[in-house]
Amino acid sequence: MDKDRKNIMEYETVALDDEDSALVIIDQTKLPGETELIHLHTGQEIWDAIYLLKVRGAPAIGVAAAFGIYLLAKQIQTQDYEVFYREFRKQKEYLNSSRPTAVNLSWALNRMEQVCMKNKEKPIEEIKGHLRAEAIAMKEEDIRVCKAIGEHGLTLVKPGDGILTHCNAGQLATCKYGTATAPIYLGQERGYQFRVFADETRPLLQGARLTAYELYASGVDVTLLCDNMSATVMRNGWINAVFVGCDRVAANGDTANKIGTSVVAAVAKRYHVPVYICAPTSTIDMNTATGDDIVIEQRPAHEVTQMWYEKPMAPEGVKVFNPAFDVTDHDLIAGIVTEYGIARAPYTESLQEIFARKETSGGWF
Amino acid sequence: MDKDRKNIMEYETVALDDEDSALVIIDQTKLPGETELIHLHTGQEIWDAIYLLKVRGAPAIGVAAAFGIYLLAKQIQTQDYEVFYREFRKQKEYLNSSRPTAVNLSWALNRMEQVCMKNKEKPIEEIKGHLRAEAIAMKEEDIRVCKAIGEHGLTLVKPGDGILTHCNAGQLATCKYGTATAPIYLGQERGYQFRVFADETRPLLQGARLTAYELYASGVDVTLLCDNMSATVMRNGWINAVFVGCDRVAANGDTANKIGTSVVAAVAKRYHVPVYICAPTSTIDMNTATGDDIVIEQRPAHEVTQMWYEKPMAPEGVKVFNPAFDVTDHDLIAGIVTEYGIARAPYTESLQEIFARKETSGGWF
Repeated sequence: MDKDRKNIMEYETVALDDEDSALVIIDQTKLPGETELIHLHTGQEIWDAIYLLKVRGAPAIGVAAAFGIYLLAKQIQTQDYEVFYREFRKQKEYLNSSRPTAVNLSWALNRMEQVCMKNKEKPIEEIKGHLRAEAIAMKEEDIRVCKAIGEHGLTLVKPGDGILTHCNAGQLATCKYGTATAPIYLGQERGYQFRVFADETRPLLQGARLTAYELYASGVDVTLLCDNMSATVMRNGWINAVFVGCDRVAANGDTANKIGTSVVAAVAKRYHVPVYICAPTSTIDMNTATGDDIVIEQRPAHEVTQMWYEKPMAPEGVKVFNPAFDVTDHDLIAGIVTEYGIARAPYTESLQEIFARKETSGGWF
Repeated sequence: MDKDRKNIMEYETVALDDEDSALVIIDQTKLPGETELIHLHTGQEIWDAIYLLKVRGAPAIGVAAAFGIYLLAKQIQTQDYEVFYREFRKQKEYLNSSRPTAVNLSWALNRMEQVCMKNKEKPIEEIKGHLRAEAIAMKEEDIRVCKAIGEHGLTLVKPGDGILTHCNAGQLATCKYGTATAPIYLGQERGYQFRVFADETRPLLQGARLTAYELYASGVDVTLLCDNMSATVMRNGWINAVFVGCDRVAANGDTANKIGTSVVAAVAKRYHVPVYICAPTSTIDMNTATGDDIVIEQRPAHEVTQMWYEKPMAPEGVKVFNPAFDVTDHDLIAGIVTEYGIARAPYTESLQEIFARKETSGGWF
């Protein structure tokens, strides 16, 4: 691994540039081969970056959307609130259409809209300032939330444990620490010596390209697996716990996460390995009753058959099923680790308790 | 799909050339992009073709090894049986070292050795003739065996059913029909209109490159999936049965097959979908007590991290676990479909009954 590559951990996943004019992200579609920071200015650039997974991971998408809508709002030239708000809504709906499954996208955009509405009597310039402050606050909050998830998650494992993770719910999916990787990074700082196994995560290989990469760059003992090897490592007794992130948790604990999560969970059930969902409360959607109510994004066939490859890897024209996410039924989940503590079954009750705790704390984090 | 590609179904997976001097195979590492027939003459060419998966699939490997050892035996220039036999053994051990997991390889080579031993009193030229006849008989037998597996398998499904398969246990893994695909092809001939789902099967993509390809070329309704999508299609209720091949079945029913089979089986258990192993009796090894006694071939990291790809897909130097096979525990298997009928749990008894039936029939097939 060359020196240049290691530097990635020093870049921020999502940031505003110094001139306050662009959203700066690492183009994650180029990792691990190239570390390229890209500057996004227009609505279409930001929409494309989210749709094309240049920035991905539910928490990172949320913060990117917050910075994005701030930058777009800043460009609205008017002193009239109604005109401003109409244009803000238009841009908000546009960004919100980039990916349907992650609740953080709409959560972050709604939170930004609230800032407009609460400040509607104020001058437009002042509203823009409040939007900027809110986006920055959301980013700082994300870092604190991930760290708290890490602390709670760390109570579920012990030094030397084998941990399996799927997709990337790492630093690259958040602003720092990651969600599923937060216990791993905190454990690493404290000498826990975990043995981590990262599923490569077809078709877009976020596990190989991103998770194996960021853990390896951080000195974690990580082994890369194909997605179809989870049963073997569990049958061998190498795995003590599974930590994964999520894109949306329903009120009953059913969890939408990267395609393949429910495969890992079914296999883990068979081998008595606990599966923990690392979920900032921003990804828990109490308005979604069950997993069946979650819209699953379908993506194009070429991601499976052609993308990445040097030569044809499937017969031309064959049908392909390519859902971006799947739903893991709540009975396969041993715990949902939030910044306010760990929810256990029955989730319909425990998730409400988590939100009650959040309420009591004033929602600050 | 262009016309040239369709022709693949008209080529034989394994054959002797007209001059009786070369083993002719389709180079399966080039499919589906190119259909290239290659002619193998030397021991090293044949060893490499098996090791590099140019020919693969337990039954096809067995027949390729039989033709291979015949061609190598034919080149032995001696009239002395002891000299001939010593050289035969040397070549046999060499070919047998090409892949450790598939029992058909050693089964086929042992059967060829028996031909030498039974005919030791005869002239060397005559022994060579018997070896040729035996290899051809094994190929014809493979075709009849696959067809019989297809007939038995077809009793387990009904028209319109959804069938999931993993890796390639198709025509390209045998001399004709395949094992797991035999019920599909026979059903296709009879208008069963199956909806088939083919796992792409990382890292070597036999499902995408070979299974999706041969089924599509044969007009079967086939949909390609990544390996991590099995839970989704089963949770959606789209799958009525799983048919897979195998590389070695132990006496208790534990089955070694392509990595990922045990993942599919654990997921299928969860969703109450029956998993059927299609196993010629040549792949059932009554001398192997359980799955724990099966040697699992480990393959190189670059198959996961680099092979096929245009650019780096994982951090350079990261550890990779790449077992070629896994063991599916017998309790996850609903039935083992052989040419002599379907074995059901408890397999320690039913597999013995299958062999008793084989014994009674004189072993002819």
